[in-house]
Amino acid sequence: WYWQKQKLQPYVDFMQRNYPPDFRYQDFAPQFTAEFFDAKEWTDIFASSGAKYIVLTTKHHEGFTLWGSKNSWNWNAVDVGPKRDLVGEVASALRSNSDLRLGLYHSLFEWFNPLFEQDAANVFTTNYFPTTKTLPELYELVVKYKPEVLWSDGDGDAPDSYWNSTGFLAWLYNDSPVRDTVVTNDRWGLGSICTHGGYYTCADRYQPGHLLQHKWENCMTIDTKSWGYRRNAALSDYLSIEQLVATLVETVSCGGNLLMNVGPTHDGRIAPIFEERLRQMGRWLRVNGEAIYNTTAWRAQNDSVTPHIWYTSRPQEKAIFAILLEWPNNGSVILNEPVVTPGQTQVELLGHGSLQWEPVKPSGLQVLLPQLSFSQMPCQWAWTLRLTGAT
Amino acid sequence: WYWQKQKLQPYVDFMQRNYPPDFRYQDFAPQFTAEFFDAKEWTDIFASSGAKYIVLTTKHHEGFTLWGSKNSWNWNAVDVGPKRDLVGEVASALRSNSDLRLGLYHSLFEWFNPLFEQDAANVFTTNYFPTTKTLPELYELVVKYKPEVLWSDGDGDAPDSYWNSTGFLAWLYNDSPVRDTVVTNDRWGLGSICTHGGYYTCADRYQPGHLLQHKWENCMTIDTKSWGYRRNAALSDYLSIEQLVATLVETVSCGGNLLMNVGPTHDGRIAPIFEERLRQMGRWLRVNGEAIYNTTAWRAQNDSVTPHIWYTSRPQEKAIFAILLEWPNNGSVILNEPVVTPGQTQVELLGHGSLQWEPVKPSGLQVLLPQLSFSQMPCQWAWTLRLTGAT
Amino acid sequence: WYWQKQKLQPYVDFMQRNYPPDFRYQDFAPQFTAEFFDAKEWTDIFASSGAKYIVLTTKHHEGFTLWGSKNSWNWNAVDVGPKRDLVGEVASALRSNSDLRLGLYHSLFEWFNPLFEQDAANVFTTNYFPTTKTLPELYELVVKYKPEVLWSDGDGDAPDSYWNSTGFLAWLYNDSPVRDTVVTNDRWGLGSICTHGGYYTCADRYQPGHLLQHKWENCMTIDTKSWGYRRNAALSDYLSIEQLVATLVETVSCGGNLLMNVGPTHDGRIAPIFEERLRQMGRWLRVNGEAIYNTTAWRAQNDSVTPHIWYTSRPQEKAIFAILLEWPNNGSVILNEPVVTPGQTQVELLGHGSLQWEPVKPSGLQVLLPQLSFSQMPCQWAWTLRLTGAT
Amino acid sequence: WYWQKQKLQPYVDFMQRNYPPDFRYQDFAPQFTAEFFDAKEWTDIFASSGAKYIVLTTKHHEGFTLWGSKNSWNWNAVDVGPKRDLVGEVASALRSNSDLRLGLYHSLFEWFNPLFEQDAANVFTTNYFPTTKTLPELYELVVKYKPEVLWSDGDGDAPDSYWNSTGFLAWLYNDSPVRDTVVTNDRWGLGSICTHGGYYTCADRYQPGHLLQHKWENCMTIDTKSWGYRRNAALSDYLSIEQLVATLVETVSCGGNLLMNVGPTHDGRIAPIFEERLRQMGRWLRVNGEAIYNTTAWRAQNDSVTPHIWYTSRPQEKAIFAILLEWPNNGSVILNEPVVTPGQTQVELLGHGSLQWEPVKPSGLQVLLPQLSFSQMPCQWAWTLRLTGAT
Repeated sequence: WYWQKQKLQPYVDFMQRNYPPDFRYQDFAPQFTAEFFDAKEWTDIFASSGAKYIVLTTKHHEGFTLWGSKNSWNWNAVDVGPKRDLVGEVASALRSNSDLRLGLYHSLFEWFNPLFEQDAANVFTTNYFPTTKTLPELYELVVKYKPEVLWSDGDGDAPDSYWNSTGFLAWLYNDSPVRDTVVTNDRWGLGSICTHGGYYTCADRYQPGHLLQHKWENCMTIDTKSWGYRRNAALSDYLSIEQLVATLVETVSCGGNLLMNVGPTHDGRIAPIFEERLRQMGRWLRVNGEAIYNTTAWRAQNDSVTPHIWYTSRPQEKAIFAILLEWPNNGSVILNEPVVTPGQTQVELLGHGSLQWEPVKPSGLQVLLPQLSFSQMPCQWAWTLRLTGAT
Repeated sequence: WYWQKQKLQPYVDFMQRNYPPDFRYQDFAPQFTAEFFDAKEWTDIFASSGAKYIVLTTKHHEGFTLWGSKNSWNWNAVDVGPKRDLVGEVASALRSNSDLRLGLYHSLFEWFNPLFEQDAANVFTTNYFPTTKTLPELYELVVKYKPEVLWSDGDGDAPDSYWNSTGFLAWLYNDSPVRDTVVTNDRWGLGSICTHGGYYTCADRYQPGHLLQHKWENCMTIDTKSWGYRRNAALSDYLSIEQLVATLVETVSCGGNLLMNVGPTHDGRIAPIFEERLRQMGRWLRVNGEAIYNTTAWRAQNDSVTPHIWYTSRPQEKAIFAILLEWPNNGSVILNEPVVTPGQTQVELLGHGSLQWEPVKPSGLQVLLPQLSFSQMPCQWAWTLRLTGAT
Repeated sequence: WYWQKQKLQPYVDFMQRNYPPDFRYQDFAPQFTAEFFDAKEWTDIFASSGAKYIVLTTKHHEGFTLWGSKNSWNWNAVDVGPKRDLVGEVASALRSNSDLRLGLYHSLFEWFNPLFEQDAANVFTTNYFPTTKTLPELYELVVKYKPEVLWSDGDGDAPDSYWNSTGFLAWLYNDSPVRDTVVTNDRWGLGSICTHGGYYTCADRYQPGHLLQHKWENCMTIDTKSWGYRRNAALSDYLSIEQLVATLVETVSCGGNLLMNVGPTHDGRIAPIFEERLRQMGRWLRVNGEAIYNTTAWRAQNDSVTPHIWYTSRPQEKAIFAILLEWPNNGSVILNEPVVTPGQTQVELLGHGSLQWEPVKPSGLQVLLPQLSFSQMPCQWAWTLRLTGAT
Repeated sequence: WYWQKQKLQPYVDFMQRNYPPDFRYQDFAPQFTAEFFDAKEWTDIFASSGAKYIVLTTKHHEGFTLWGSKNSWNWNAVDVGPKRDLVGEVASALRSNSDLRLGLYHSLFEWFNPLFEQDAANVFTTNYFPTTKTLPELYELVVKYKPEVLWSDGDGDAPDSYWNSTGFLAWLYNDSPVRDTVVTNDRWGLGSICTHGGYYTCADRYQPGHLLQHKWENCMTIDTKSWGYRRNAALSDYLSIEQLVATLVETVSCGGNLLMNVGPTHDGRIAPIFEERLRQMGRWLRVNGEAIYNTTAWRAQNDSVTPHIWYTSRPQEKAIFAILLEWPNNGSVILNEPVVTPGQTQVELLGHGSLQWEPVKPSGLQVLLPQLSFSQMPCQWAWTLRLTGAT
């Protein structure tokens, strides 16, 4: 982002203080060394977080590809910097060592690519750039790495006709090697975002707060200020595990998936603070995953009486999940939304066991929480009540 | 440590894979840039941890000084690398922004200094090195930065007579500008460690497990494998906050101070994972500091009946502190060591309030713990019972 | 050439001794800084050499372009390294400050360009590479810099049909902005060298030793071992001025032009040893240029009786030039080839004046050389006799 | 010199344009790589120049030593940069491969050494610096490399008593391993230059133009603008061979030695333009060395009638040498100074043979020069007439 057209003063100042006068973004490429990059370690960390799929940025708006793109000679991670096929290593480690699904992020446009600038100057009546860069790269990515998610981004204010997205997607869904499994998002040309596509991403950190009819994804970052790794991030810039769990719960409750971004370092590591958050998330999911994975948004998203309670459901199991972001001090909690039937409705605290409950007028129930010592709590940060026999 | 004489194979291999053939330790100096170093930020983090003093490494065994030592020309942080007086910036920020006391670490010997090697080859019958390097530096450090702790290290197998430690310490305690306030440790020449000196440090990570007669310090590291910052440290290499609190408690209970090391990065930061641990420690101390600061070892260090309980005391307040590293599940805890007097002995949970207790035969008491919900707990990781009217 | 596929052991060894293990050719790009590059200084040096045109390498087989080629993004001198349009600066300085003509060298193929490799793997039945790289670049070079010589090189074993050379040349000669002035060489596809084209270059350092029917050029280097600058070249690796003058004379005598290469340094300079040779050549041409510029090969190239004499002619002035590479010790020289007519034939030593001569049987003449002291000699290294009234 | 206290604007500007803001002189040290340094090649070039001794700069005013000085740890060529003992390699190659004598240059003071600055602030009443740096280094140089010339420089405005020069020189001439062979110069403390010492150097480029009573040396540079190598030197900055030969002749004629400096490159080479000048000088000396080596200043230094003639002599052979910097055009030359005796006086052109001469009134002689063609001249640039039987 330092390279973007709108030169931000803090970046300009930082460069002036620390680099030679003519130092440019391209000069960083040899410093991207990735000597500590170990795709198996990454896979272990991702798997430990409880994630079910990852999305790797194979090329961002600056055009540098993390695989040896034939159409990006000497501006890719095989020719300069790491001198390794980072996409290939991640794909291979993921499939050998985990059940995670592979997603690949790819930016359609490139900020400063002169062929894109030329097309833009021609008001997109020419398409030198998609023909020689974007489309060959998309085909190459799909054929070579067979992603299960293709996460397109960055339309550069050009319509899908310029990008020939329709043609590409037709191939992807009908003829490509991943035609039976692939999922895509909604960023395939000007105007398609939040309107067309496999699932909607809408804005970054999109959090509607209510149920969406179309499947969607909240793509956000643990470092609240950046998608990339920032050396100078302070602890206060990172979301706490409490905030992350709350974000996950709210997102799933409203029908979305959570895509939680970590930015790796120039030498190929996932910083320990990110690892800590990812493993904490995994610890929470090992107790509460049933309320997250394979769930469906329920008819109510949150409770109208008790705040900080979000609902999900598993219709196939006739289960409703009420996730409490706060543990009550008074020994019980009121759930206003479920319709209960005495003798039939059962309530369970995930990680603990069955609980007593009482119907409440005019609707809902009061669940009696167990007197658990600190060490007996099944988890921290949020707790799940599983209801069956309720609607 | 990469530079040390005993070349360890993993370091040799790493250098061969990533650096030119003749790259040496000295070539790292220009890469030590410290562009993000902000002594005020450091001070804030240290103060937030609840520490009362810090010890800054001003020069380690490789001889590079973090201040512009006149006797280490072009091998110090003012001439190469950061081009800043890092010791001066820390000292100044500490005194302006905190109540922390300043300690300075200084290594007597230097692994590869040719003058030290010459003296060593002369079986320490010459002292070119202490005369032209160590002693001028020690005087300069004291006069210039007025440390309240002077933490000497690294005797290089040479006796205190070679180092002229006696002469220096006589000056330090009688004539130096810090003669009325300074504290030193025990590493002033071969044989003095754990035997002579202001306080004993004995070994690194020294943890006797029982009371020592002489004041001592447990100097240890949050990264279990290194004093310096390791880019490739995994989360599992860092001690958890539970482990750190337990170490603090055990150390203080046995009469020691805890010196908890964090290694800063080449660009001058304290990594967020360290910041997280330091701030967690501070959060714990804000509730339990009374059981740590200004305390005295009690007659018993830990409890002979209930495991994972350590004692400290404040004789001036006639208070005994029992610190529980585990929260009991059964609602009460037995303390075998205190001698109680019904009607006189009072028990308090720090951060909460008074508790009921009952005497136990043949000795001690049973404290009834309150039924606190997760949100009502005064702290995590360890809890303190304060006893008065007991002995 | 270090990068070429046939890895030569001395280069491999040098890299191993001096660079990190993974250092590649691409990593040199940021070290190509050209901070001392001054196109006006270059122009002055070139003009002082007596040259009439220069040929600048705009892109060699490694594909790095010295101008900001749109089709070579981030692999050109504007994006990385000098961050300047070196071709544009040379073109502009040349036209502002000299009468020199601008020639541009351009390699058709690129050793490692993956698109070229793909086409080659397809036995040149596809032409991704010329379509997206070579041809757009050639058009851009011509339109932008309007060269008077276009010096094509490096067919990569692909036929002119693959390169679409015919189409490009048709445009160049019929429709391009330089259609009335441009000259090209003979390297436009497999088999065209020394066979088709504006002038023939045949091999590097081509020196037939006899007259060629087609206009040709001897492209050679002052450093006998390299086209590029070699830091470790010794003085003995450079041709002496005597050798260079002899090469020029022989080349022109056989109907060729001389293209005398100097390799500039990474920081943009022409090394003083090259400058010395170029200026020495200019000093010689200021006296003898009449025998070189605008001359035509004569019916004889060298003399059949006296060795080391080469002939050129200016038919428009009815002048024959005999260039002596050695100055005779005996005060006269025999020229066997000219047919002389007493009373009509006149002989002149360029830089001095008229000389006496006598006819010789069965043919030719004996020219009486003047008794010149060292200081009176018109030049060094070679001397020209101008004959008029002879055939 | 870039580092000196008086910051010159062109250097400041160059650094600002090409380096990061905080880049300092010390940061150049790792870039001093010397990968092409080959002491045997250097020796060959020096020997080919006809020199009889060399003087290597072992440490200049910036204090960086080209050998692994124990008193300059991490600021020497063994610890950083080349990581080789350059002084040792030169000394060894010189003695194995040539008859050249080894001279070592050493600067007493150092511009920015903090210990020197401290002494200077104390008006040289303390001598921390000479005690711990200058003197140990001088002793080490002599004992380790056994130089035949010790060339001291840079008194830093401090008297010889501060430097303890008298004590050191007493040791050098009486007790050192080179006591029987060593020669020194005249720069051993404020006021000693041109006044005391083995031979006088007076100013740089010192050329009195008349005979001095004390042995002296003209230390000058081929690059007219610098002692060090300048990447951006143009050809016009270098003295021509004609100028160098004239300088040598005038210097020797006035009783001096010539010390002709070349500055090597950061990668350890002697640039070809220097090599050319050195070998040209050697070519001249192979013919005219008799008039230079082991000669004595004659009673006249130059001729009072014919300009550009300088005299030397070899009393042991009763030979007088008249060196002509210009070759006369009229076939003869008048030497006004020698007193000749017909029938006894003989004149010879070195490299050619005996010449005719005639006495001239009121004094001197006219030498008839031979009619030599260009190829027959014994040498270029200057020519020597050897007279015997004259006074």
